[in-house]
Amino acid sequence: MPSLEHHDTIRAVAWKDGALRLLDQRRLPFVETWLDCGSADDVAAAIRDLAVRGAPAIGIAAAWGVVLAARRGADLDVAIARLRAARPTAVNLMWALDRMRARIAEGADVAALEREALAIQAEDLAANRRMGELGAALIAPGSAVLTHCNTGSLATAGFGTALGVIRAGFAAGKIAHVYACETRPWLQGARLTIWELLRDGIPAKLIADSAAAHLMKTHSNGSAAVRWVIVGADRIAANGDTANKIGTYQLAIAARHHGVKFMVVAPSSTVDMQTATGDDIDIELRDPAELFAVGGVRTVVEGAQAWNPVFDVTPHDLIDAIVTERDVIESPDRERMRAVFGA
Amino acid sequence: MPSLEHHDTIRAVAWKDGALRLLDQRRLPFVETWLDCGSADDVAAAIRDLAVRGAPAIGIAAAWGVVLAARRGADLDVAIARLRAARPTAVNLMWALDRMRARIAEGADVAALEREALAIQAEDLAANRRMGELGAALIAPGSAVLTHCNTGSLATAGFGTALGVIRAGFAAGKIAHVYACETRPWLQGARLTIWELLRDGIPAKLIADSAAAHLMKTHSNGSAAVRWVIVGADRIAANGDTANKIGTYQLAIAARHHGVKFMVVAPSSTVDMQTATGDDIDIELRDPAELFAVGGVRTVVEGAQAWNPVFDVTPHDLIDAIVTERDVIESPDRERMRAVFGA
Repeated sequence: MPSLEHHDTIRAVAWKDGALRLLDQRRLPFVETWLDCGSADDVAAAIRDLAVRGAPAIGIAAAWGVVLAARRGADLDVAIARLRAARPTAVNLMWALDRMRARIAEGADVAALEREALAIQAEDLAANRRMGELGAALIAPGSAVLTHCNTGSLATAGFGTALGVIRAGFAAGKIAHVYACETRPWLQGARLTIWELLRDGIPAKLIADSAAAHLMKTHSNGSAAVRWVIVGADRIAANGDTANKIGTYQLAIAARHHGVKFMVVAPSSTVDMQTATGDDIDIELRDPAELFAVGGVRTVVEGAQAWNPVFDVTPHDLIDAIVTERDVIESPDRERMRAVFGA
Repeated sequence: MPSLEHHDTIRAVAWKDGALRLLDQRRLPFVETWLDCGSADDVAAAIRDLAVRGAPAIGIAAAWGVVLAARRGADLDVAIARLRAARPTAVNLMWALDRMRARIAEGADVAALEREALAIQAEDLAANRRMGELGAALIAPGSAVLTHCNTGSLATAGFGTALGVIRAGFAAGKIAHVYACETRPWLQGARLTIWELLRDGIPAKLIADSAAAHLMKTHSNGSAAVRWVIVGADRIAANGDTANKIGTYQLAIAARHHGVKFMVVAPSSTVDMQTATGDDIDIELRDPAELFAVGGVRTVVEGAQAWNPVFDVTPHDLIDAIVTERDVIESPDRERMRAVFGA
């Protein structure tokens, strides 16, 4: 049986000698460069410009941004406001900043803030390992699974959320085949997920985003059968509605149509019990120009228009299981969410 | 009211002075170059390499390929076999070659073959105009519509199939908004459909393929509401099952989920009553490398694998209307198809 350690070698957020180093995800998979952030503004820019991405990783980076501001004696309220404004959809960002702010309110010094950021990072890694076990337990041996975007070590403190379940499920012999959607427009699946899986020895096949339903239809029997779609989340509302990368909702509809199960994997920091339903989640619209070029090469004629939402909301009734480090919520709804997360 | 002529200015297949000229679709939208084909092998290569694409355009080009072979005194059986083998899924290719072969069997000379190819081309244009009227009549005023791939003048003798309905519907004031999917991996929507629509004065917005369901969900009321998904076809089976560009099936599932109607627009030459159902249609798998780069820029790490089907099959029960030049078949099934196409 393959050892899990061989399938978990990547870390993308590193605190070292009083500075934050981020593996620059804009340049992967071909160039592995580290971005040094010396201030909260550096971190805010890295979040805004997608050098660091993935809801949990954004939260961790923001916590370190507060530490950097404290070390410089900068105005922490200003630093937190700038970090908070960097991206609107992922609630982990707000959660991590609120946690740092609570320590500040208690009069924490720089060393205490550093310990808090380190705890946020360590807890995320531990949560991912636990979710890996819980999620893999839901998967029947010999399954093929499909994932979207990148939810791996690059998107978290390490191991990953949905990709953590895939790491654990592969190591446990549950998962026979992994398919990954390209994930336009940023191609996180093509660039990042395939890179992670290849590097960590987990065979995977890339598909066009629009090939997912055809994959489910034509791979419905035997060891190649797709049994689960496994995705991460940027925000989970109190009723289980889940905001995640654009295309997730379309996959959930296709999965239900084919009897394929749909799993959301996210740490409890992604759950926002203050947001009643998915209708209340702010969906980030990014620059239409992101659809006009790929890899710096313009593909669309000048004068074109585009609509570029980068997240969508999957309603809870299309979700078979939400896996968090606290528990698995099957067929999530308001009551079942409340039973685990209170409020 | 806008005149239809202003929205129909593009022709991509031209027979001139004994040679076939093809607007090279690999280089659009930035470079408009014409590829001169002097032999059937040139035409077969142009079809195989996607310089000419779109099921009806492929059939027309192949017919001219037979004329070129006849003018050179080449072996027509060999020429037809090579043209037939250029791509497997579009039945129009087989249909056009069978029609040329029937003339050859009757002893047609070069001039007669030339007239036959010209007739195939002219009939396709006339069919598209007729389908434009029939399809637009189904659309309520003030609708938004979504299309996939490129089904316009570039894919046909001119005017287009699905894009012909959009041209006619826009000119008639029926269509208020057009959305076009990028259509990975070849980006025919981003590169070609947006180019055609912009050039012909029809405002359109590009979306990522995976944003379609989110579009339908968030644009379900008022003048921005998406009422129809309108697509072309590469082969329509006897029961109405339709092979078309990868992603079509996923759009049909999303459309049904949202109560959006689904229209297939194709000339009767696309209907293959010899193929009983979609399960009998040969789906072309292309080189996985098509998913590893965009615009010549590599985006995926070396050693990656991919699954790259370029068509899928939409079952007839997800289709609200098949529009051909002969008639509209609503809620198509075997009986309704037989009523129009016999056999």
